[in-house]
Formats: sequence, structure tokens, C-alpha cells
Amino acid sequence: MSDAVDELRKAVPDGRVLTDPDLMAAYRRDETPTVSPGQPRCVLLAGRTSDVAAALAWAQRHRVPVVPRGGGTSLAGGATATDGCLVLSTARLTAIRELDPANETVVAEAGVLTADVDRAAAAHGLMYAPDPSSLEISTIGGNLATNAGGLRCVKYGVTRDSVLGLEVVLPGGRVLRTGRRTVKGVTGYDLTGLFVGSEGTLGVITSATLRLRPRPARYPSTLAAGFPSFGAAARAVAAILAARLRPSLLELMDSVTLRAIEEWQNTGFGADVQALLIAQDDGEQPDLGVARMRDVCLREGASMAEVSGSEAESRQLLELRRLSYPALDRLGATLTEDVCVPRTRLPEMVARVEQAARRHGVLVATVAHAGDGNLHPLFVFDRGLPDVPPQVWAAADEIFRAALELGGTLTGEHGVGIIKRRWLGTELGPEAMAVHHAIKNALDPDGIMNPGKVL
Amino acid sequence: MSDAVDELRKAVPDGRVLTDPDLMAAYRRDETPTVSPGQPRCVLLAGRTSDVAAALAWAQRHRVPVVPRGGGTSLAGGATATDGCLVLSTARLTAIRELDPANETVVAEAGVLTADVDRAAAAHGLMYAPDPSSLEISTIGGNLATNAGGLRCVKYGVTRDSVLGLEVVLPGGRVLRTGRRTVKGVTGYDLTGLFVGSEGTLGVITSATLRLRPRPARYPSTLAAGFPSFGAAARAVAAILAARLRPSLLELMDSVTLRAIEEWQNTGFGADVQALLIAQDDGEQPDLGVARMRDVCLREGASMAEVSGSEAESRQLLELRRLSYPALDRLGATLTEDVCVPRTRLPEMVARVEQAARRHGVLVATVAHAGDGNLHPLFVFDRGLPDVPPQVWAAADEIFRAALELGGTLTGEHGVGIIKRRWLGTELGPEAMAVHHAIKNALDPDGIMNPGKVL
Repeated sequence: MSDAVDELRKAVPDGRVLTDPDLMAAYRRDETPTVSPGQPRCVLLAGRTSDVAAALAWAQRHRVPVVPRGGGTSLAGGATATDGCLVLSTARLTAIRELDPANETVVAEAGVLTADVDRAAAAHGLMYAPDPSSLEISTIGGNLATNAGGLRCVKYGVTRDSVLGLEVVLPGGRVLRTGRRTVKGVTGYDLTGLFVGSEGTLGVITSATLRLRPRPARYPSTLAAGFPSFGAAARAVAAILAARLRPSLLELMDSVTLRAIEEWQNTGFGADVQALLIAQDDGEQPDLGVARMRDVCLREGASMAEVSGSEAESRQLLELRRLSYPALDRLGATLTEDVCVPRTRLPEMVARVEQAARRHGVLVATVAHAGDGNLHPLFVFDRGLPDVPPQVWAAADEIFRAALELGGTLTGEHGVGIIKRRWLGTELGPEAMAVHHAIKNALDPDGIMNPGKVL
Repeated sequence: MSDAVDELRKAVPDGRVLTDPDLMAAYRRDETPTVSPGQPRCVLLAGRTSDVAAALAWAQRHRVPVVPRGGGTSLAGGATATDGCLVLSTARLTAIRELDPANETVVAEAGVLTADVDRAAAAHGLMYAPDPSSLEISTIGGNLATNAGGLRCVKYGVTRDSVLGLEVVLPGGRVLRTGRRTVKGVTGYDLTGLFVGSEGTLGVITSATLRLRPRPARYPSTLAAGFPSFGAAARAVAAILAARLRPSLLELMDSVTLRAIEEWQNTGFGADVQALLIAQDDGEQPDLGVARMRDVCLREGASMAEVSGSEAESRQLLELRRLSYPALDRLGATLTEDVCVPRTRLPEMVARVEQAARRHGVLVATVAHAGDGNLHPLFVFDRGLPDVPPQVWAAADEIFRAALELGGTLTGEHGVGIIKRRWLGTELGPEAMAVHHAIKNALDPDGIMNPGKVL
């Protein structure tokens, strides 16, 4: 077998193939604490599309499973190594091949950091809208593979909504180009959409033509509104959307999250703030938009509602949201969930999360991309435990089933990966599962692309 | 074989299967004048999803090709009957199963007219954004099958951008549900996107969950600007977009089109109007948006630039655009093309269209969804001819190749159907063609769904 690895070494530039277990350790796992990675046979640090092509040709010849990875920030185990696999890192494909401000497009290689795409766009008065919380450490390739979401989705949609075309290396090493550079086009099937969100199970995305948008003239205006209960805050969200206001961000944090931040940062929220809503408007009249949202919040029983007076103040309010995860991380090990429901069902879904937490005696904190109905219940448990406690899985199971019952989905933006695979059939049903398998078999007949993930 | 048709009759309610050639005549052809339809074996007027399922089970048992059709408004031959086929009309699946104003979704069956979806939404202060010119006679099912565009695409995207989920009957009769009711969701592959735009080659869409949007508070403000040349108008389009203005409609008509309308309706444009740009803004400050576009047009050499003072006047200006097709139809038979280029290449593409017309001595009129770079060159030729003259095909061929050369696509919104099939491989390349065939074979192994279209 080491002969096989030598063959791969010869097919790519020197130093790109790792086999030393110590060096490979950093490439075995992603940000999912609840899965145990396998031991890869080797790691390829691809530097060009042709390296990826050579690797996939090699993998097919030797029937080696391939686990593609970008920044390794998956929360669903999507980039977790399996025993004997090739870990194929696209993190070193870092060229921005082209930026066309007039057509508002950028061609970025898979390893470019999400935030770097946005920064490159900003130099031309443009923005790359998708903004997963991991944007400073996640790659465009990983975002594309998982169809990542983010905070601005409520106005600008998810990653798939910003992709015009892809360069994908198929199993066996052929290089496929999908889509187009135009904003419209209906020549053939939507292969671009098919590869986006396929979590590395159909091929490896090496580059993408992304759509940019005009950057708002100034930093969005920001509102922070406190509510006496999560339910009241969720009702305010529904009222904001029913008033046809169009926030560019609408985030909700529950009391467990607020207390965790409070204990750490001494933010000084009173007992009348059991839930915090943060909203932004980046439209033509941002102050007006935010003032209207403030009025709605006060009408819906907000105990406080402050509009930022400056960019600095706005950023500070938003920072509260960003502190959620590190603050909760201080309490113990966490399992982050990602259900999404029709946004009017948010209050019900929150109640169901609270029920599940109580019933199974587990600590759950919830932050939500409330405008999308996308909740992230975070289960907190003892860091010393060897495994996720069974009551956490029981509560998670209950939450998934509740989301489906309310017309929702298992995963709003993190992907299926390993950790939601066992619930996939429940959401999709047998016909959709059969179509998934038919497509997977058609494009990856040997089943070597990211095996054990999604399907 | 009539035994087989009897079997189909028994599987669906009475009167749903037509075999009389006179009755079938209306279901043989679509709006593409340049293709000759075959003679169907029978026509099914499906009234329920279960009729479609029964028909596809029957078609598979008897290996009968199936040609699905909605309103029959295809301009690419996509709904043209082939000899011995079952024409499967979904036009009678006309229920709006559900409208959820709070979640801004509607579940509409395939046969609902596009305009009726929008009217149903309007009752709740919402709109269905995709607006192909045929919206009063085209069905949602046909729009989905072709991923139809329209005038508002420049701001709101194409049909695919407004679809959350589908009900699809697969070859053999299984009923598949794709997607979700939530605005976000990444459980599994994007089957919704795959079926949208697949032109009936993978299955029959019977119902869709569509996304609605807030309806602008009032009818959009409208600008009409005349230019001394098409090139000057195209440059104004580029300047409007470069100024990061966000029109909700940006349509361009060339001098051939204007003269055809002029001769018919006596619109009174002077010799200094050789191209007309119509723009709308439906944003938060529509009058401001339109005034800014007017300024840009004047700076770019507009010979006239009028802003509407009222909804009636706005509608009248837009009516000019709608008159293009009937006005050109008065001049002879027409072949409507549909190329799309990166929008900054619009002036070049227009020049290439004019060159092709001159070189081959054919009359070409061009109207364009200019903000998307989507041009519709219309070839006009003698209605008495038995067939499209070879010089028209030669000019069309040159135009397709020019579009691809400029980084564009064969079809921005009409689809491949029959008439662009021969150019498909040129745009897609061998790898993408192979992936198309792999998917087609995986989902329709007998090749009975709309054979001879797209692939």
C-alpha cells in the first residue's frame, strides 16, 4: 500500500502528501466534538486543480475513500477522516482568479477564506453576502460543499443563492465546469445547485464563480431589544416580518445564552431581559427600518429597545451575538444543533426545545437566525465525559422530530454530515432517498467520495 | 395498442384521455413556429397528481414516450409532441392548495397560471416575483420545467430562486417530494433545483411550494429613455448598474422593434430614438431611484428621458415593451432567440447580432432584458415559407457562437427544448454532457420522458 502512496507522491509536487501521523493529526477532525475520527492513510495538501484531479484518479484506481476538507469547521462531522482514507485538503487553493466589478462576479478557488472574498469585494464597493459565523476561518470550498448559511441570509439567501458556476473534480479525476458567468441561464440541468450542498459526496469543488452585490453605503443600523421571555421575542420576530419590514439580520438569543455571556462579560442585562433580539437594516433607509422594528418590539412587550447611534455601537451590539458560542463553551462540552422551521412556528419550536431539555434533564441554550426560523439549540454537557451522554441524544432526537412535525427540517445550514445521517430518511422519505442513491451511484459508482457522510 | 390506451382510460377518471386527432390537435404543438410536431397516441388531461402517477406507471409498462405540457407557450419546442407519445397536460391541476401569508409561501399545482399565483399573493400584500411575458397564459408547471425568467428577474431572480419545494411524479409513477417549507434547509441534495429547468426530461412536476415576497407599496416608478443608437443605450445600462442602482426592471428595444411598433401604433418617436430603454424601481424610494437612472441616461447621451407621473402613465410606458412581440409578428413569421451574456458585454453582443443579420441578409429585431444581459434577437422571415430559411439558421448559429465567445449562454430563460439541442454540447463540453447523461439515465433509465428534448 505504501507503493500506492508513492504513486500519489509522484503525481503531485513535492511535499504535498503527508503520511506522518503527527502531521496528519490536524487534518483528521473537524469542529464536531461528538464524532471520533479515523486514521487517514495520507493527506494531500492540493495546491492546484490538477493535484485534485491526480488524487481522484489515483483514489479511483486504488479504491481509496476520499474525505475532502476546507477549513475543517464542520459542526456535523462532514470533514471527519475515516480509516484508510485520503484526506484531500483544498485549503491551499487560495487564488482569487478574477474579480469583475462591473459584472459583480468573482472567481475564487476553494481554499479562499470566506471573509477574504468579502474583503476583496469591498475594495470595489461590493460584498459577498453569505456570512457563516465561521467566515474568518472557513473556506469558500467548505461553504459551497455545505451550502453554508449565516446572519445575512434573512435578506440575501444562502451560499447557493450566490453561486453562478463551479469547477468540480469528479471521481476518477475529470474536471467538470458547471453553470455560467451570466446572471441568467438555463442550458441543461442545474449541476451547480446539485454540487452545492452535496458535502463532498459527489466530487471536489476546486473553484467557483460567485455573485457579488452592491455593498451598503454604510454599516447597517442596529437594534437590540430585550424581552421578558423567549416566546415574546419570537412573537416580535413574527410581527416584524408580518409588517413586511426587511431586516438584513435578525438574531435571537435565549436566557441561558444571555446568562452565560453575562457571567463572563458582565453585560448588565436585568432580570427583565430573558431574551435578546438583535436586528439590522442595511437598506436604502436603514435608520427608518430599524426605528420601525423598534416600534414593533415595544408594541410586542420589549422591556428594552436600543438603537445604535454609531457604527462602533452597532458592532458592539453584534459582538454580543458573536460571544454566544465562546460564552457557552465555557460551561462545558457542546453539541450544536441546527433545526429550521417555518418562521411563524418559532415560538412553538422554542417551547418544544425547552420541553425536551426539561424532560431529559439536559442544559440547552438556544441562539437563532430568527428571521429564517433557524434555531441552534446547543446542548451543554460535562467536558470530562468520554462520549455524548445518551440523554443529550434523546433530547436531540426529540428536537429533530419536533422540527419535522412543525413542517421544518433537520438542518438549516450545517449539513447532514455524520451526525444527522441516521435521521435523513425520516425527513426525506423513501422516494427521495431512492433518488439520492440513484444520483450518488451515477456520479460516484465506486462510493469512494466522503463515504459515511450524508447518505 | 388501443388496448393499451383503454388500460390508461380505466386508470383515470372518465373523459380525461383524448385520442380523436381533432381534439388532440391543440395539444400537439407549442408556440415554436419552427418545429413540426408529431402525432401523439393520446392526450391525458390530468386532474390530480394520481392521474399523472397512473399515466407514468402506464407509460413505463408500455414504453410510451411522455411529453409533459403546461400552457404550451414554449418558444424552444419543449412541449412539442413526438409520434406515438402520450401528451400529458398538467393544465387542469389548478388548485392553490395553500397560501400562508405569514410565512410568505404558496403551494400551487402545476396548472395554475403564473399571473393567478401573483394575484392570489396580491390579496395579502405579497407578490410572486417571476414574471415571464407569457404570465397570463403560461402555467407554473411550465415555468418550473423551464426555469422561466421575466422582466423582474433583474432584481428578484428567476423561477428557481422562488421555489422551496416540489411534488414530482417520477418515471414509473412514484411521487417524490423535494425541498421544504422553510426558507433555509440543507438536508440532502438539491433535488428541487435539479428538477426545475429539466424541461420534463426527469419527471413531471405536479405542485410546488413557492416563495412570495412583500409587494411594493405602490406601482413602480417608470422611466423611458430614448437613445440615438442601441450601443449608446447598452452603455447607459452598464452605467446604471455600475452606479449600483437597483432597478426592478430594465428593458431595451432596438430600432427595428421600435419602427414595427411605430408603424402599428403611431407612437411618435423621432429619428433620434433608435433604441428605447424602459426602467422601473420598486424599492423604498422609487422616485429617487428612477430620477437617478434618468440622470445617468442623460449623461450617457439619451435623446429623451421621461419619468412617469402616475401609475397609468407607467403602465402605458411598459405597454410599449409588451407590444414588441405582436408588432414584430405583423411583419412575418418569427424565430425568437434567447442568448445571455455578462451584462457588460451587451454592446458587443448587440454589434455581433447586427453583423450576423447583415452578413446573412436577414431581418433581426432585438429586445433585451438588458439588466441581465439577456437578449432576444427575433428573426423575421416570410410567413409563406414552408420552413425556416437556411440563412436564418446560419445567422442564429453565428449569434449562439458569439454569445458563447463573449462568456455567455445559449439560452437565458427559454430553455433548450428541440431548437437548441444541437448546440448543447458546444456550451456544456464533454464532461458536463456525460454528467447530464448519467443523471438522465439514473432517473429515467428507459428514456421515455420528453425524448428528443434537451439531451
